[in-house]
Amino acid sequence: MRVVEAALAACLLLGGCVLWGARIGDGSARAQGAGPADAPIVADLVAASRILADQGVVDGFGHVSARDPGNPNRFLMSRSVAPALVTADDIMAFDLDGVPVDPRGRAVFLERFIHAEIYRARADVKAVVHSHSPSVIPFGIAPQVPLRATYHVAAFLAAGVPVFDIRAAAGATDMLVRDAVLGRALAATLGDKAVALMRGHGDVVVGPTLPMAVFRAVYTEVNARIQSQAMALGGPLTFLDAEEGEKAGRALDQIHLRAWELWKRKVTGAAQAPAPHDR
Amino acid sequence: MRVVEAALAACLLLGGCVLWGARIGDGSARAQGAGPADAPIVADLVAASRILADQGVVDGFGHVSARDPGNPNRFLMSRSVAPALVTADDIMAFDLDGVPVDPRGRAVFLERFIHAEIYRARADVKAVVHSHSPSVIPFGIAPQVPLRATYHVAAFLAAGVPVFDIRAAAGATDMLVRDAVLGRALAATLGDKAVALMRGHGDVVVGPTLPMAVFRAVYTEVNARIQSQAMALGGPLTFLDAEEGEKAGRALDQIHLRAWELWKRKVTGAAQAPAPHDR
Amino acid sequence: MRVVEAALAACLLLGGCVLWGARIGDGSARAQGAGPADAPIVADLVAASRILADQGVVDGFGHVSARDPGNPNRFLMSRSVAPALVTADDIMAFDLDGVPVDPRGRAVFLERFIHAEIYRARADVKAVVHSHSPSVIPFGIAPQVPLRATYHVAAFLAAGVPVFDIRAAAGATDMLVRDAVLGRALAATLGDKAVALMRGHGDVVVGPTLPMAVFRAVYTEVNARIQSQAMALGGPLTFLDAEEGEKAGRALDQIHLRAWELWKRKVTGAAQAPAPHDR
Amino acid sequence: MRVVEAALAACLLLGGCVLWGARIGDGSARAQGAGPADAPIVADLVAASRILADQGVVDGFGHVSARDPGNPNRFLMSRSVAPALVTADDIMAFDLDGVPVDPRGRAVFLERFIHAEIYRARADVKAVVHSHSPSVIPFGIAPQVPLRATYHVAAFLAAGVPVFDIRAAAGATDMLVRDAVLGRALAATLGDKAVALMRGHGDVVVGPTLPMAVFRAVYTEVNARIQSQAMALGGPLTFLDAEEGEKAGRALDQIHLRAWELWKRKVTGAAQAPAPHDR
Repeated sequence: MRVVEAALAACLLLGGCVLWGARIGDGSARAQGAGPADAPIVADLVAASRILADQGVVDGFGHVSARDPGNPNRFLMSRSVAPALVTADDIMAFDLDGVPVDPRGRAVFLERFIHAEIYRARADVKAVVHSHSPSVIPFGIAPQVPLRATYHVAAFLAAGVPVFDIRAAAGATDMLVRDAVLGRALAATLGDKAVALMRGHGDVVVGPTLPMAVFRAVYTEVNARIQSQAMALGGPLTFLDAEEGEKAGRALDQIHLRAWELWKRKVTGAAQAPAPHDR
Repeated sequence: MRVVEAALAACLLLGGCVLWGARIGDGSARAQGAGPADAPIVADLVAASRILADQGVVDGFGHVSARDPGNPNRFLMSRSVAPALVTADDIMAFDLDGVPVDPRGRAVFLERFIHAEIYRARADVKAVVHSHSPSVIPFGIAPQVPLRATYHVAAFLAAGVPVFDIRAAAGATDMLVRDAVLGRALAATLGDKAVALMRGHGDVVVGPTLPMAVFRAVYTEVNARIQSQAMALGGPLTFLDAEEGEKAGRALDQIHLRAWELWKRKVTGAAQAPAPHDR
Repeated sequence: MRVVEAALAACLLLGGCVLWGARIGDGSARAQGAGPADAPIVADLVAASRILADQGVVDGFGHVSARDPGNPNRFLMSRSVAPALVTADDIMAFDLDGVPVDPRGRAVFLERFIHAEIYRARADVKAVVHSHSPSVIPFGIAPQVPLRATYHVAAFLAAGVPVFDIRAAAGATDMLVRDAVLGRALAATLGDKAVALMRGHGDVVVGPTLPMAVFRAVYTEVNARIQSQAMALGGPLTFLDAEEGEKAGRALDQIHLRAWELWKRKVTGAAQAPAPHDR
Repeated sequence: MRVVEAALAACLLLGGCVLWGARIGDGSARAQGAGPADAPIVADLVAASRILADQGVVDGFGHVSARDPGNPNRFLMSRSVAPALVTADDIMAFDLDGVPVDPRGRAVFLERFIHAEIYRARADVKAVVHSHSPSVIPFGIAPQVPLRATYHVAAFLAAGVPVFDIRAAAGATDMLVRDAVLGRALAATLGDKAVALMRGHGDVVVGPTLPMAVFRAVYTEVNARIQSQAMALGGPLTFLDAEEGEKAGRALDQIHLRAWELWKRKVTGAAQAPAPHDR
């Protein structure tokens, strides 16, 4: 493990800390507002990327972003790299047109407009996950089978899960949300919901915090797997209804950090030796 | 590995030993009855938590408890933490109202009433597992598809697996068994069985010993996976009948410890170098 | 890794070697015929046990045996222990009544009669695997759905896979083949085939060599998974017919050792540094 | 890790480098054209073999080849060994009749004619993967269920996936493509497509580069799993149509290397410490 990695792991263990030194936040421009200046959110984004890979939500593709805590008209996301490989130095800032603030020659994700347009449309959203979550894709291509909440941990699905078909917005495409027009169409389909499926592509998940968006992305995948297995049993199924979903969703506000802590420890290699009174 | 962890692993290897020292059982009150004074059961509870995580029965959520061997009106369970992270120092004692004996400011599980009310109702029960066992949840939401024993290792299911629907007890809720009334309703549904499913939530598994409860929780998950696959083949299925289940269940009394030993070695890192004449 | 383990790994790497010293083959009686005197087969049995665990064919239960190369009226099998934990010192010799030759107080498997009666009935059989192979159990309880060969690697299934229902032999039991009468009934159902399913229990797989029996056990599991997925697609399926199965089966005689070598390296920790001209 | 392995890992990290020294490229004949003289492609072939094993496309069987960059009438492929164990020294050159250029006594794959005849028929193909990809086999034996593109990452399937039934070419066989006649029949079925299924056997995947062939092989497996799960939901499904497939396929030309880099780092053990500005 290199020094930067070790420092990052230490920061994650401590629950976020100011990163310093030459390699991370290594200069004047970035440290003074032209880039990702808020170190705890950077460390959490790195953890979020690796958690999503470790939990099987993303593979070589997919990305997670967070609204800049210091500037609501910006969001933070890695350069174009596989999520499992993201380090703090990969995190870049973008404005709501998807333009990088300080590109320094780094390649950016083509589909950053997914993030930009959702942040523009939804002031309540502080984090966005886009993935090709493998158990979820079937529901995006089965127009008669809505994704439903099978248990309380996926309560955020009970309010409904819309499906975005890019064909309705733009005809035959390469399926990618590669400009602001397509990003706005997706954001419109998402509406005020937590999750929208993307036909022939994957899904997008949002949250009021980064840990909550990651939590929802993981349990959207888990719930899809459970629902598929339940449907294969045959016979009618009883899903959470809207009222149960709303009440159970509030309970998640309190307990989702238990999962986030576990996942974060796992990707930072600290799972084997937790401090006994750590929270 | 920290010293405490190493000591714990050594104890697990030896099949249980008295834990000593400042960090575990570090004081007068706990050692003299106000807390989890029985060290072998504490070490087994830590192993049980980690086994259930390692075997895929629990994720960041779920909990396992054991009745206090020294006081049948108390049970032992970890503070509110992901099962994979539990250490001996996290184990707390509760009375049968779910009140912690020596809280010391530690957060406790909201759903401890599942455990408390089952211990109150069932003198034969010495251990309880509550989980969101992923292959089991489908059976909880498919009211026409009972969980059945597909093979002798899951014989304890042959007597029947009731389904608890919290809606019948309390209308639209957040699905959580968060008080004694709900705990009693769940215990009433469980009756004298080994397993009860919880609609839109998970399941609860009990046993006459901690290793047996863990064994049943693991094979309830495995059996659910097998039954789902068998049902997908189409055509009629032949499950164990009640008499086969009763007889095969008695055989498990003798052999379940073979699995428990394997699982315990795996989570304590001792699986690679077993002593040849260890039991 | 203990010295014995290291020596064993070295032997496995070298493709079998004479084990010596005090701990393995440590005495007069065993080395002179009262016990497992043939060291290469002992090392292969240890590897076979660990391979079957590593490949998901066995869990805490299941066992593999080999006919004693030096005495066709004896077979070698471990004491009663989880297959992943077997070491050379655990291997015991049994006669064809299932009686251990040199028990030395070690616990033996209740179902050793599966092995004993198949060796008695089938002179061509040199190795037997009994498991609760999880993807295979569904086919044992679905009387209208025969297990078929979906591809050439599972060609040995094309001759037919009988199903043993212990109820036909003995009425309601604990499902265990716990005596010679039940063992003979199972051997009769197996007939001249490579695999027999056991209703509500698992299966038994035999082979003309130990690597071939292990190979067949692994690909019976893989094939069951593939067939289940193929049946879920709906529509008719084209399996290997008897002639294709017979021809493809002969090809396996030549190539199955490629898999055995891979699996053996994996369980002995040698997979990462193979010698480039090792065979 | 042996020195050769370490050197190889270093080369892979650097994106390909000239291998030197006694063990790899250790002589005059090989270095001067009688064998695999192009070291970067050799290193990539080793990585490709291990990636396909790591991603679950191949097990002990299967093979990947690349057309020799320096001689279009030759291709490079390992000797007969499990893909996970391939090292640079195992890579051999073959002509388009499947004859090894410099055998040195090494065993070769029986089915090298799959590769030879596709390279002969398809000048655009620079790499070929043959596997028993487990989720794909069901589609090869279900003649009424074509494999379709469920999402843009598998766009290369949208042009159609033919099925090769060796029985149509040669009657009842051992299912193996063991000569040039069978190889040509398979190449004819493949036509100008990226993937052909092989009934009762597996599939073959081709690409204009080695990373693209590996990418397609991995996502053929992933797509088959997704399509199976989608079909199990019941109801109609919306797959990518031909125009979407063609457009999305072009987008893959740009982004598939992101996955290749991730997978390569994983099999070379470098995934945990990527350089922040490595590409």
